[in-house]
Amino acid sequence: MSKSLDYENLNENVKKCQYAVRGELYLRASELQKEGKKIIFTNVGNPHALGQKPLTFPRQVVALCQAPFLLDDPNVGLLFPADAIAKAKHYISLTSGGLGAYSDSRGLPGVRKEVAEFIERRDGYPSDPELIFLTDGASKGVMQILQSIIRGAHDGILVPVPQYPLYSATISLLGGSLVPYFLEETANWGLDIGSLRQSVAQARSQGITVRAMVIINPGNPTGQCLSEANLKEILNFCYQNNVVLLGDEVYQQNIYQDERPFISARKVLMDMGPPISKAVELVSFHTVSKGYWGECGQRGGYFEMTNISPKTVEEIYKISSISLSPNVPAQIFMGLMVNPPKPGDISYDQFHRESKGILESLRKRAHIMTDGFNSCRNVVCNFTEGAMYSFPQIRLPPKAIEAAKSVGKVPDVFYCLKLLEATGISTVPGSGFGQKEGVFHLRTTILPAEEDMPAIMDSFKKFNDEFMEQYEDYRGYSRM
Amino acid sequence: MSKSLDYENLNENVKKCQYAVRGELYLRASELQKEGKKIIFTNVGNPHALGQKPLTFPRQVVALCQAPFLLDDPNVGLLFPADAIAKAKHYISLTSGGLGAYSDSRGLPGVRKEVAEFIERRDGYPSDPELIFLTDGASKGVMQILQSIIRGAHDGILVPVPQYPLYSATISLLGGSLVPYFLEETANWGLDIGSLRQSVAQARSQGITVRAMVIINPGNPTGQCLSEANLKEILNFCYQNNVVLLGDEVYQQNIYQDERPFISARKVLMDMGPPISKAVELVSFHTVSKGYWGECGQRGGYFEMTNISPKTVEEIYKISSISLSPNVPAQIFMGLMVNPPKPGDISYDQFHRESKGILESLRKRAHIMTDGFNSCRNVVCNFTEGAMYSFPQIRLPPKAIEAAKSVGKVPDVFYCLKLLEATGISTVPGSGFGQKEGVFHLRTTILPAEEDMPAIMDSFKKFNDEFMEQYEDYRGYSRM
Repeated sequence: MSKSLDYENLNENVKKCQYAVRGELYLRASELQKEGKKIIFTNVGNPHALGQKPLTFPRQVVALCQAPFLLDDPNVGLLFPADAIAKAKHYISLTSGGLGAYSDSRGLPGVRKEVAEFIERRDGYPSDPELIFLTDGASKGVMQILQSIIRGAHDGILVPVPQYPLYSATISLLGGSLVPYFLEETANWGLDIGSLRQSVAQARSQGITVRAMVIINPGNPTGQCLSEANLKEILNFCYQNNVVLLGDEVYQQNIYQDERPFISARKVLMDMGPPISKAVELVSFHTVSKGYWGECGQRGGYFEMTNISPKTVEEIYKISSISLSPNVPAQIFMGLMVNPPKPGDISYDQFHRESKGILESLRKRAHIMTDGFNSCRNVVCNFTEGAMYSFPQIRLPPKAIEAAKSVGKVPDVFYCLKLLEATGISTVPGSGFGQKEGVFHLRTTILPAEEDMPAIMDSFKKFNDEFMEQYEDYRGYSRM
Repeated sequence: MSKSLDYENLNENVKKCQYAVRGELYLRASELQKEGKKIIFTNVGNPHALGQKPLTFPRQVVALCQAPFLLDDPNVGLLFPADAIAKAKHYISLTSGGLGAYSDSRGLPGVRKEVAEFIERRDGYPSDPELIFLTDGASKGVMQILQSIIRGAHDGILVPVPQYPLYSATISLLGGSLVPYFLEETANWGLDIGSLRQSVAQARSQGITVRAMVIINPGNPTGQCLSEANLKEILNFCYQNNVVLLGDEVYQQNIYQDERPFISARKVLMDMGPPISKAVELVSFHTVSKGYWGECGQRGGYFEMTNISPKTVEEIYKISSISLSPNVPAQIFMGLMVNPPKPGDISYDQFHRESKGILESLRKRAHIMTDGFNSCRNVVCNFTEGAMYSFPQIRLPPKAIEAAKSVGKVPDVFYCLKLLEATGISTVPGSGFGQKEGVFHLRTTILPAEEDMPAIMDSFKKFNDEFMEQYEDYRGYSRM
């Protein structure tokens, strides 16, 4: 007799879920690492794991919040600057018993107020702290909102393809339907509203009601920044089709060009004025894991709700309550992120130097990587305008595709596994994010240290060009 | 036209969920607090919010992990003892980039090893770190396991009544069926195997397959400790009925009597020997939020799987991956909890003094509270053998029940609201946990500071006895 938790008796939605960022490639990389091979983990946007140093000031503040007894120590000033001490006292005063006490399930009211003030400064429109919920990272917030929306397989969620697999995995887990809309690689991963309408029409013909649309801006894995005009089209589309917009804006600080700065979906919505600005339901997500912070391990994030009915907000609050509260230390990181040191503060210069250094280096790395990929045989790559990833297209020769099939692998998985074995570079195959039929990619972060980057790109190029040499038969590439 | 996220369009399972610990009473208490009333929050086991001081040593270690640059500071020894510095270096070495890097989705391998060693010391049987997953608090672990089990309304989960509403809420959310089994108040909240069999038979007659059974030991809200004999009966029952046992053992350090020490379900299972010890599927949960730690706001926990098939473990790992990793600071708290300072360590004496002080005081408070309740008119209360709660039965007079009905309130909600308005004591009505028809309770934590306890109990008694005076008509009590 099979047991309750045997594989065949598990929730089918659990089994259906795929999460490539920590999938076959990651598991193989972990094995190789155990065997002593040096692995460059570029499968996940995890900057500190690749040597990025934490920003000093926020770490000082949170350390003091963890050890509040230090605040009374006459020697505290020897290790901590006065503004970190003052900030720690401020944040402790916002808690109801320090970092060890559960906060309200939506997060500390004082931090939510700071987030609202940040949004107002950023967008030029007031924001209501009561509509901001702090979360254990942005992913948890996305999962919670999708859970409220999805009732079954007839509920569709528009997701860009290529997409970040949090979306496909969560939609599977909740038993909903992913409705893909394709980003156009030849137009620098732009979004085409025509293709969006087509996706909705096709979903409808299958009995699926499209209830929400996900945008990732800047794009993951694709790295593009959405223009204001594009955001307006999207919001108009949401208005006409009665669709909630889920704005994944976790990379809003990660911008590597000046032509298309980050602009929030909320600002564009407000700029559009009534009736649209009062109608379109929008949930925006942010995190402490990205930007120049990269505090992934702390697990902090928020979502802000716009034009969501108060009764629904209550339901979302109720569901948040079940897990009691997001972790409190990360709430303080969030407060610090939206309210960093200001000119004139003791710690301002250091904070500014550190954060500027990280962003400038990321910008350089985005260029080194894109240029490196474009110098490789059969590889083409759009420039990383924002976010933390490069998503080159790998034009696999037919013989390579055959070789992959003969060992039962998807072609890009085959390529990425060979790359891993040869170089230790751990990437994620494009098939984990979705791509057009017959087209192959890989995703890598741009996070390896700047000084290591040339060697990594050399190692990639050597592997790739030999791979192509081996499998190319001059009868043609895989189609674009 | 209604919008996508309007209340009527939400996931019905979201709407069905109830979570009384942060329900009507808590919301009203929060309002009163905003209006300036002094509220004693005993609705949730949140020790630091009621003045419990954090243990010094673990906070020193985690503060240093947050601010690793201090480890190189010549003055660090002025603020931190040498063993805290050594421990911080140890835990940083277990991460792959400090607290800011995502860990493996199961948690840091080094911490999972420490948890396994703790379980082995506690139970006398080896434990495998690969079967231990760290989580953002025990609740998140429970939710994840239930998600793997529940496929639909025909899947039943046996839950004690009264229960901790995490279980009822999560089962609702996942669309499963809660199958209640009743704890016997007159037998000090003991579990009767006969009633368990009856529950299963009744569920079967309704087409429900019972797939898992929850035990909470020590009990929440009921405070009883399960005896070894009782645990054996339960495990035999699980074996015979092919049911996974979910052992919520988060209060294992909170024991206030010597007759029935905590004994883990896993130890009893192993003691029973084959075939049972090799067959019964068991998942055990633990946390840093309870015990003498009370680090609720950090959100740290683990679950350990016994006799779960490797393929299922892989699926659970995959689902964990979607939210990338539990927060890393709380993983270190977990490491410290299972591996605290030892005799001879610099910090041992202080750590021992602090933790002993907390437990001894909780033991005293358990007595003050039980005795206090039993001195009140129409109130009877079992002694809190363990956990953090007192769950007195309030024998409401018929006139009080009528008065409640006339304002549309469940009688115990009516009582608890009046108590809140009169005294500021914020409790949770028994109806939030489940109770036998016509019997009423409330749950309060035993966490208010020892020195405040007599005044709180006086205030409760004054309110209760006046309430009873007002509503009693000498025609009899509500039935027991």
